[in-house]
Amino acid sequence: AAAAAAAAAADPTRAARRDTMCKEARADADKEPALASYLFSTILAHKSLEDALAFVLANKLKSTVLLDSQLLELFSATYRRDGHLVKMAQADMQAYIERDPACEKYMHILLFFKGFQAIQAHRVASALWKQDRKPLALLLQSRISEIFHVDIHPGANIGAGIMLDHATGVVIGETAVVEDNVSILHGVTLGGTGTKDGDRHPKIGTGVVIGAGVTILGNLKVGANSKIGAGSVVLRDIPENCTAVGIPARLVGGPKPE
Amino acid sequence: AAAAAAAAAADPTRAARRDTMCKEARADADKEPALASYLFSTILAHKSLEDALAFVLANKLKSTVLLDSQLLELFSATYRRDGHLVKMAQADMQAYIERDPACEKYMHILLFFKGFQAIQAHRVASALWKQDRKPLALLLQSRISEIFHVDIHPGANIGAGIMLDHATGVVIGETAVVEDNVSILHGVTLGGTGTKDGDRHPKIGTGVVIGAGVTILGNLKVGANSKIGAGSVVLRDIPENCTAVGIPARLVGGPKPE
Amino acid sequence: AAAAAAAAAADPTRAARRDTMCKEARADADKEPALASYLFSTILAHKSLEDALAFVLANKLKSTVLLDSQLLELFSATYRRDGHLVKMAQADMQAYIERDPACEKYMHILLFFKGFQAIQAHRVASALWKQDRKPLALLLQSRISEIFHVDIHPGANIGAGIMLDHATGVVIGETAVVEDNVSILHGVTLGGTGTKDGDRHPKIGTGVVIGAGVTILGNLKVGANSKIGAGSVVLRDIPENCTAVGIPARLVGGPKPE
Repeated sequence: AAAAAAAAAADPTRAARRDTMCKEARADADKEPALASYLFSTILAHKSLEDALAFVLANKLKSTVLLDSQLLELFSATYRRDGHLVKMAQADMQAYIERDPACEKYMHILLFFKGFQAIQAHRVASALWKQDRKPLALLLQSRISEIFHVDIHPGANIGAGIMLDHATGVVIGETAVVEDNVSILHGVTLGGTGTKDGDRHPKIGTGVVIGAGVTILGNLKVGANSKIGAGSVVLRDIPENCTAVGIPARLVGGPKPE
Repeated sequence: AAAAAAAAAADPTRAARRDTMCKEARADADKEPALASYLFSTILAHKSLEDALAFVLANKLKSTVLLDSQLLELFSATYRRDGHLVKMAQADMQAYIERDPACEKYMHILLFFKGFQAIQAHRVASALWKQDRKPLALLLQSRISEIFHVDIHPGANIGAGIMLDHATGVVIGETAVVEDNVSILHGVTLGGTGTKDGDRHPKIGTGVVIGAGVTILGNLKVGANSKIGAGSVVLRDIPENCTAVGIPARLVGGPKPE
Repeated sequence: AAAAAAAAAADPTRAARRDTMCKEARADADKEPALASYLFSTILAHKSLEDALAFVLANKLKSTVLLDSQLLELFSATYRRDGHLVKMAQADMQAYIERDPACEKYMHILLFFKGFQAIQAHRVASALWKQDRKPLALLLQSRISEIFHVDIHPGANIGAGIMLDHATGVVIGETAVVEDNVSILHGVTLGGTGTKDGDRHPKIGTGVVIGAGVTILGNLKVGANSKIGAGSVVLRDIPENCTAVGIPARLVGGPKPE
């Protein structure tokens, strides 16, 4: 925690964001005394974003056969080892602030948005997967699916600045790649076609927006900054800067209509 | 509780429905002794529907950082302050009895239907939102999404006699309006188009039936008594008494086909 | 447990599979000591698959008003009474091993796959329903929907060798029939049209594959070995060995195109 506080002190944006969260928490605790102890234990008691994140995630993902103290140590150790994970969490927070009209406070993202929580827990599972700690990574995947209703294989590669909005029912397969600044609504699947092993899941370019209930199947590419309309089923590549809709999805806008 | 019992005594329908629930609970407890203590604590121990509702919801929505005693007091106080909320819960119960062929007992709606429970908890969150107790309202929204898999912004306005059937994956945005006697299946989204702030969500007329997996986006109107077929994506107004299906939805029946 | 161990000893495949799971658990516990007590309590402490299943399901489905000890006794008694349920669980496990490229170990199916857990808990609810223990069966249905996000009416008839993959949002109605060796992705509905009582839900033939987000409505038949593409809405019979896609679904492949 001392190292984390030092890191926060060395990064003015990071320190500022933490100060903002604490100010938000104190204002809410003053306004709603019933929440004071909740806000203290989840936000104000912690010296850094990673400490608060580790506490919130451990508290949500614990079970009677997996103690929150074990999870807290696991998350804390992973954040200490890989400082990049915290930077990605910060970029995700910024994504909600900028893209979600119903989101007003940093604190609410950390505490209330199960899509944000699911992505952060996935990043820890992914770090464990890369260290070949597969049983623990798969256990985390399973708990994330149970508690946040988001099933992301720990092998999937997810960039920074991701907004996973509402989140219920999202499924992302083992060999999927999601680049930075992608927005994914609830009910979205990045899946396989069921006919192959190996590299079998979609690659989503930077800045893509995927509407509610979209299914994208197979090792295909959705080009940067394209948009996929709600309810679409995508079965082939989508170029950059396009809009695609329907079952199967066809292009309806953008610089390179087919 | 004494006031509630007096209110129930003054309203014969209400008293009758409570008597029916207690009779149902006693019959089930006799038939299945393993359930006796469960049915006592959730139904028979309570003097009114609002007491039973407050107990059931507090018990479901509690967490290690938010005690059930705090939630029980919050729900009870809200029902005492706003008796209309209980009338709406009763109208919702009636909706399941009349419209769901698999629903036979009032008691089962209260105890087993997460769609019913989610709507009742939302009504409390909505009352808190209108009193400008936003942090608490947003916390409830978040817990409802975690526990019942239904994400309704506390700013949304939901009428009475609502059947939210199966309920998993339902998302209803901040400025949505749902009038009385609407049926909403699971996987339904009343969302924004992502391009606007302000009043940006659908307005659903009285008696509308929205099929499984339907996505309705933007500040548009679905006219009274219209039906939207499963899997449809609605992007423009639907007149009254029509049937609309497909992606995007087109009219296939009703008095004013386009 | 002694009887179960004797049964396992008498059935070489069954004993072999149990041995495989214990070997998997010991290997994981050696590799990841943080998981040792978790793997002991869920797998290694049990003498048979049914003991392990009863423990895992009771632990997941318990609540403050329904103790895990009550559920453990209920599941154990049901497995003792109906040995066929365990055979079906084994066939389901085999289905994941053969059809899911991301599934490598039997143990992970038992511990981590909420679709597998939901189907096993449903089979117990279904056995109770047939014994006319309806209140308990409906309570289990409700807990399965809360915990695994899968809503299967206990009256539904589900065959063996079922792969319910990812599972979030699946809904299966009271009079639905699913024959053996069917694969069902997440977000699938086997529902009614809302206009009828009685026998009102789909009948799914052996070997059918139902893609993500598919909605099948009404008392219709999907013929053996047919495939329904992701996002489709099926409103009429599908012959055997066909592929159907779209809203409404039309045939795009197979021996009997319309």
